[in-house]
Amino acid sequence: MHKAWKDDPAVALAALPGTKLADIDPASTPGFKGDKKLGDKATGQQVLDAGRAQLTELQQRLYARGVEGDERRVLLILQGMDTSGKDGTVRHVVGSTHPEGVALTSFKAPTPWERRHDFLWRVSRRVPKRGMLGVFNRSHYEDVLIQRVHHLAPPAEIERRYGAINEFENGLAERGITMVKVMLHISPEEQKERLQERLDRPDRYWKYNPADVTERGFWNEYQEAYELAITRCSIDAAPWYVVPADKKWYARIAVQRLLVGALESLDLSWPPPSFDVQAEKKRLKQS
Amino acid sequence: MHKAWKDDPAVALAALPGTKLADIDPASTPGFKGDKKLGDKATGQQVLDAGRAQLTELQQRLYARGVEGDERRVLLILQGMDTSGKDGTVRHVVGSTHPEGVALTSFKAPTPWERRHDFLWRVSRRVPKRGMLGVFNRSHYEDVLIQRVHHLAPPAEIERRYGAINEFENGLAERGITMVKVMLHISPEEQKERLQERLDRPDRYWKYNPADVTERGFWNEYQEAYELAITRCSIDAAPWYVVPADKKWYARIAVQRLLVGALESLDLSWPPPSFDVQAEKKRLKQS
Repeated sequence: MHKAWKDDPAVALAALPGTKLADIDPASTPGFKGDKKLGDKATGQQVLDAGRAQLTELQQRLYARGVEGDERRVLLILQGMDTSGKDGTVRHVVGSTHPEGVALTSFKAPTPWERRHDFLWRVSRRVPKRGMLGVFNRSHYEDVLIQRVHHLAPPAEIERRYGAINEFENGLAERGITMVKVMLHISPEEQKERLQERLDRPDRYWKYNPADVTERGFWNEYQEAYELAITRCSIDAAPWYVVPADKKWYARIAVQRLLVGALESLDLSWPPPSFDVQAEKKRLKQS
Repeated sequence: MHKAWKDDPAVALAALPGTKLADIDPASTPGFKGDKKLGDKATGQQVLDAGRAQLTELQQRLYARGVEGDERRVLLILQGMDTSGKDGTVRHVVGSTHPEGVALTSFKAPTPWERRHDFLWRVSRRVPKRGMLGVFNRSHYEDVLIQRVHHLAPPAEIERRYGAINEFENGLAERGITMVKVMLHISPEEQKERLQERLDRPDRYWKYNPADVTERGFWNEYQEAYELAITRCSIDAAPWYVVPADKKWYARIAVQRLLVGALESLDLSWPPPSFDVQAEKKRLKQS
């Protein structure tokens, strides 16, 4: 772990039973010590750069082992309010690794076809294959977040889903899938600034959606829905992490570190050769 | 274009009618002027870094326009002998952009299910959606390369495929898909060294496949098959580029430049707002 960390984010950010989002400052930087001389942001950039090499190496090992039949994989599940930095996290944390080994799915509002199935159907089809680093940009949690806030499903159905999610994720864990579930936690003030930026910059208009302003009116309902999801669906095999995200540099290194930690826990050595190395050297020489 | 280029690779590397691969030195660096003080490799790194920002910006524009309904997209088709650097090109050229906007497909030996369909079936299903930068790591060209060399299809069928490919690619062009078809051109000596490295480094064993040495015995047949494919399937809408690839740094900046050039030719401005900017500013302020 980089020396700028004083505590492992996996410990500092793990959601505890009864987590209250209101008690977590979105501008805080848990576990981060920083470097007084260099300043926090510049230190964060150094940590991100160093972590890239580490993440890329670990991801390559995972991929290589997958090629050789190892069934394990890692799945990052990213949730957060609009503008909380999901896309940027994908780009700056995952974007530096080998595209071949990354399976990214961005879940949008379900299509009519998807709606005809159980809410877990479309998600289960996108579970990463062996050796892959999977990323869900939004996920099945939308079905207990936006759907709860806007009463898009009856209360009993929402209630059923928490249990269904736990069962589903326990099943994934049994199949060798290590999940890292992240909520990017921003403040309404920070969101306002980020939306303002999208309205101020013509190269950001396309990221702006008038519905995002409407949704701001449901801020408290969303926070409640997140708290419930985090409390009801933090299982040993798939804990939730609440990552303060008002500071983008912090959110990125925190998610990166969580991913690196998950990969390290798999203790991935390079796979042994599936051929006779000396014999192949001889064959190659003669070729 | 970076000042280290004296000629646009799109001109310097375009395959001409009757292209003979034997006449193209795999260790050459067409169009590249370099910088005497800095040295070629270091200059190449600078060019690559500068190109990353450019490619990422253009790709974001393409993606943003796609969100707004623009049907255009770009497809990089990568071919080359084993170890020619296809994976490395994907990682170092495409890997720096936004994962959300990249659709990468690596084509392996066709599955029994794929074999039951026409050879273009599996490829047509992976054509990038609008706004995407698509990448084919290997492609439908395998069906006139390995299949020709090893007589996996009757001569008349191979013959039919050249025409079918041209028709297919013309159809893609009509739908707004700009193709960049690249053959990474290495020498048998360079391949030998790269295979040797995979046998010398335990972290590269997984990349080694004994069949690659067997395939070296068919080098000339492959070169012939490539020449034929390049000659028969260089259409105006989808030209072939032969990229000398013994020097990895050169191959990367050349492919990067070809991609940037293709994107520049689309003249992609940021999409106009699909909402009333002033009204939204007011709404946001009041939210």
